[in-house]
Order: sequence, then C-alpha cells, then structure tokens
Amino acid sequence: MRKFIVGVMGAGEEATAGDLSMALKLGELIARQGWVLLSGGRRAGVMQEVNRGAKLVEGSLTIGILPNALAAVSEFVDVVIITDMGQARNNINALSSQVVVACGAGGAGTASEIALAIKAGKPVILLATDESSKTFFQRLSHDKIFIAETPEQVIQIILDNRIF
Amino acid sequence: MRKFIVGVMGAGEEATAGDLSMALKLGELIARQGWVLLSGGRRAGVMQEVNRGAKLVEGSLTIGILPNALAAVSEFVDVVIITDMGQARNNINALSSQVVVACGAGGAGTASEIALAIKAGKPVILLATDESSKTFFQRLSHDKIFIAETPEQVIQIILDNRIF
Amino acid sequence: MRKFIVGVMGAGEEATAGDLSMALKLGELIARQGWVLLSGGRRAGVMQEVNRGAKLVEGSLTIGILPNALAAVSEFVDVVIITDMGQARNNINALSSQVVVACGAGGAGTASEIALAIKAGKPVILLATDESSKTFFQRLSHDKIFIAETPEQVIQIILDNRIF
Amino acid sequence: MRKFIVGVMGAGEEATAGDLSMALKLGELIARQGWVLLSGGRRAGVMQEVNRGAKLVEGSLTIGILPNALAAVSEFVDVVIITDMGQARNNINALSSQVVVACGAGGAGTASEIALAIKAGKPVILLATDESSKTFFQRLSHDKIFIAETPEQVIQIILDNRIF
Repeated sequence: MRKFIVGVMGAGEEATAGDLSMALKLGELIARQGWVLLSGGRRAGVMQEVNRGAKLVEGSLTIGILPNALAAVSEFVDVVIITDMGQARNNINALSSQVVVACGAGGAGTASEIALAIKAGKPVILLATDESSKTFFQRLSHDKIFIAETPEQVIQIILDNRIF
Repeated sequence: MRKFIVGVMGAGEEATAGDLSMALKLGELIARQGWVLLSGGRRAGVMQEVNRGAKLVEGSLTIGILPNALAAVSEFVDVVIITDMGQARNNINALSSQVVVACGAGGAGTASEIALAIKAGKPVILLATDESSKTFFQRLSHDKIFIAETPEQVIQIILDNRIF
Repeated sequence: MRKFIVGVMGAGEEATAGDLSMALKLGELIARQGWVLLSGGRRAGVMQEVNRGAKLVEGSLTIGILPNALAAVSEFVDVVIITDMGQARNNINALSSQVVVACGAGGAGTASEIALAIKAGKPVILLATDESSKTFFQRLSHDKIFIAETPEQVIQIILDNRIF
Repeated sequence: MRKFIVGVMGAGEEATAGDLSMALKLGELIARQGWVLLSGGRRAGVMQEVNRGAKLVEGSLTIGILPNALAAVSEFVDVVIITDMGQARNNINALSSQVVVACGAGGAGTASEIALAIKAGKPVILLATDESSKTFFQRLSHDKIFIAETPEQVIQIILDNRIF
C-alpha cells in the first residue's frame, strides 16, 4: 500500500515569479498522477504554491515536513510532520522521497537538499535551474541528475526512467 | 485542510498478545473517526497491528515515521517517512501527533516517547499500562495524562476532552 | 586518545536547591577523575551548576549539547555543540556518554533522557531521585540502573562497576 | 571559557592524495593557534588526516561528530559525539563551528555541509576546490565565501577577517 512520494524543494521567501508559477503547475501534475507530494510545508514560496497546485486535484495527498511547531504551515498541506530539527529536516525530505525535484535555482537550503538527495542515492530533477547548479550537481552525480525546463518534462522524466 | 493525527506508540518485538489485540482494535477505531494514524511504522508489534487495524477501514490514512531506510516497514503504512534518526525520531512522533496513545506498558522506547510528548505539552493517553507507569507519568504531568483500559475508552477520552 | 565521557542530566529552571548543590559537587568530582563532563549546556539549573563545579578543577573539559543557537549557554561550558534539534538532542546526550547520571528527580526532559539511555544500553545512575522514578526505571532495565544518594556514591559506582 | 571551533569537512574514502596532505597540515595549523578542531570524526580521508595533524600539537583538542555508534572513529579524536543522525549531523557540524573549511573539492556530503553552513550564516573557506564549486557557492553567498589554495592561507583568512 506504500505510496509513491515526490519531494519538491525550492526557495521560500526568495522565490521568483517564475519559480512560483512552475511550482503551482508541478504540484497539480504530480497530484494528477496519483502521487503523494512531500515538501518543506511552509506557507511561503515554492512550498506554498506546489501544495496549492496539488490540492486543485480531488483526492490528492500533501505532506509537509516542518522545521518546528512555530512555522507558518501552508493551508494546502494535509499531513503536517513537525520535526523541530530546522535545516536537518532536509535529510528527511531527501530520504522519504522516491525522487526529488528542485524547482528553480533556489538558495542554500535547496542546495543542501539536492546534495543530501544525491548522497542518499536518490534521483534528482533540476527544474529550470541556472548553469552553475547544473555544472556543480552533475559533477557530484554522473547518472542520477536529470534536467527539465517545464513541469510537464518532470513528469515525463519520472515515467520514462521508470523511477515510478 | 490539516488533518487530525493520533500517534500510537508501543512495544515492537516485545509486545504481549494483549498489546497486539488492543492495537488492532485501536487502529480500526481511529480510522473510523476519520483521523490519521501515525506510528513508528515498523513491521513489528504494536506498530504492525495498529496499522493493520486502520487499513481495515476504507479511506484510512496511515503514516509511519521510520528509524532508517533499512527497517522493515509495515505493509499497512501508506506514507513512509524515513528519518535516519534512530530513537531521536520519537520526538518527531510526539510533536506531529495532536494526541499520543501508549498502547500497553511498553519498554524504554515507548517511555521516551511518552516523556517527550509530555515535554511538548501534548495530551497522552495510557492504554492498559502498569501501575508504575501511571504513577511515574502522573508525577510528570498533572493535567494531560489520561488513563484508559480499552480502545473504546481512548476514543471517548479524545472526544470528551475536546482534544479533537 | 578517546576520552571517557559522563553525561549529567537534570532539571533546568525547575531544579530544587538540593539538586543544585549536588550538581555542583558532582561536576567537581567528575572533573577530579579526569573525565569529560557532558550536559545539555544551558545556563540554568543542574546544567549550570554541574558545569560550574567541573570548572573549579584545572584542566577540566566540559561539553554542552545545546538545543539551538539562541539558548543561553552556560559560561562554564568549554565546547558548545549546537544541534538545532530541541529535545531530540537528548538522544545525542545518551549516545555520547559512557554513563548517564540523572541528578535529582527531574522532569519530562530528564525522563526522556533516562529512557533513551536505557534504550541505548547505557548504564544509568539515579542520584537522589524519588521512589516513582526508581520503580519505573528499574522495571525498564534490570541490570543497568544504579541508585545513589550522594555525588561521592556516583563516582564510586562508576569505579566499582568498571564502567570506567 | 567557550572555545573557538573550526569545522573541517571533506571527502572520506574518496579523498585524493592532495586532499589528505593538505588536511594533515591544516589540522596542525589549527591546533597551533589553540583552536578546537571539529570534524565528522570517522577514520577515513580528510577526517582522519586533519585529526592526525591536530594531535601532533600538544594540548590540542579534537571533536568528532559521528554518524552512529558503529562508525569507525578516528583514533585522533578526543571527544566523540554520537548522533545516530547520519547525514543530518552535517547541520550540527555547521552550526557548532565558528568557521567551516572545506578541504578539497569533496563530494555530495561535503556539498551539503557547505550549503548548510551558508544557510546558517557561517563563513566558509573553500580550500583547493574546483571551479564549479567556487562558482556555485559564490552564487549562494556573496560575502561569506573565502577562497584559499593552501592551509596557511586558511589560517590567514580567519585571522585577517576577524572571524576569530
């Protein structure tokens, strides 16, 4: 009965307008596949929009891995996991996702999540990221880094590579 | 949309027959209320039976907070969260549950979860525990420890005390 | 070169006068043996006094495992480890100590540390605790719980049982 | 009395000969300044050599933040902190160090530590790293990334920038 979980990471307060619109679409597409969405769960940036997108789909399920009990939780998160572990929760996000999608170039938090996902041997899809991220993460992992420019490509990569 | 989560803790390999049959019934009753079940998620003891009970109910949702990626996961867990934190995950269980139920007397792991739940200010229901546990935990918390002898009483306590 | 570490746990703001004076003496005696003192590291209660006692001894070494970067650190802690893990750091305290001493009856935080130490198979010495704690923890561990009434007895127990 | 802690990160089993000889020298220089050395503590790669270097200096102090109780600990580590948190311990390393030095290009684990250190607002010195790392991490932090080519330059950067 174990469900397939897609982790989506990305900037909070510093997200760009492009990051946000892609996150919204990505959340919807993940939910349409019947997959569970996992994110950092805060009511900010990519986290907020990807959950909003998923909840446009009936029967969707969204999991938020929150830093602590005081963080503002996205109202589009169904199941709230409180870690009280700050950034160390990024490792839980990486380990609990069957595939990790970084939505936008992101900042240091997103970078740590991508690195931890690579360390854990998880496939990582970089969606609309910058050149320095592509170069850097492809050095760290030869065969588990995938590049996408659109949310639709993310879904296609997961299906084509039998990650699902 | 945030769902109400009941955390159920109890012995793994050392669970008694009484613990197991109560866990099965408790899981079913929690799911019938439409509440989410959260547990340590392993395929052993109280964790296995409470999840089995919940999955007897259509539309139920079970979350397992696993110690690491190598632990045998209960096949009755829908959403598997891998922490790689060993016993420190007990704090996540306590923080993420709106109420914590200790099913049976339990061992040191269960004791740590009850203590962490009290520390986090969560209501704790001791189901069919021993006298030394009752005395000890009631010393630690005057007003948030509840005593139940049956799974049905657990549900009643949650409803009566407006914990839900 | 690995040093022998004694973990001392106990109440913060709720510590009694008796807890505090025992903690002061205990810290001094641990340091006189040349052992490293590990504690929760905050500038409060048993943590503050046990570190103060250790630093009365020249060449002593005190380690504090702090909940987060904002916590007020005892000025008697030499090495500050910031976990940002809140109460989940209690598991680190238990795992990193060769023996755990609970100084006074303590509250829920101390109880979780004792339970986690038992779970990790560590010897635990209960110093000047109450009857309900003795009864409860002796049920959880048959052979690794020791009872002391004075700081001097704590040192003697460590030496006699070849824990050191 | 709180001591100044320098965290040194780098590859374990995949470390190059160049990484190892730099780590040895770096450990010695850190210890000569009277600073505490903090590392991942394993008996492998940069961790092993940087601790070996530090222990060439009398009175030095080395702290190892270990993933779990089973990991082989460097015999040059004085104080062993067992986290049982796997890679999530990287956040503790970052938070507990006043400055983080990445020794060599490193892999995904080192990358996560650098990213977490940036996220925590810590100064980071990249010692003998590759171009893709420099470009990537300088995008993530404008003013807290320093570049060094030799261990001596690392010490100079710490002294010149009043990080100490």
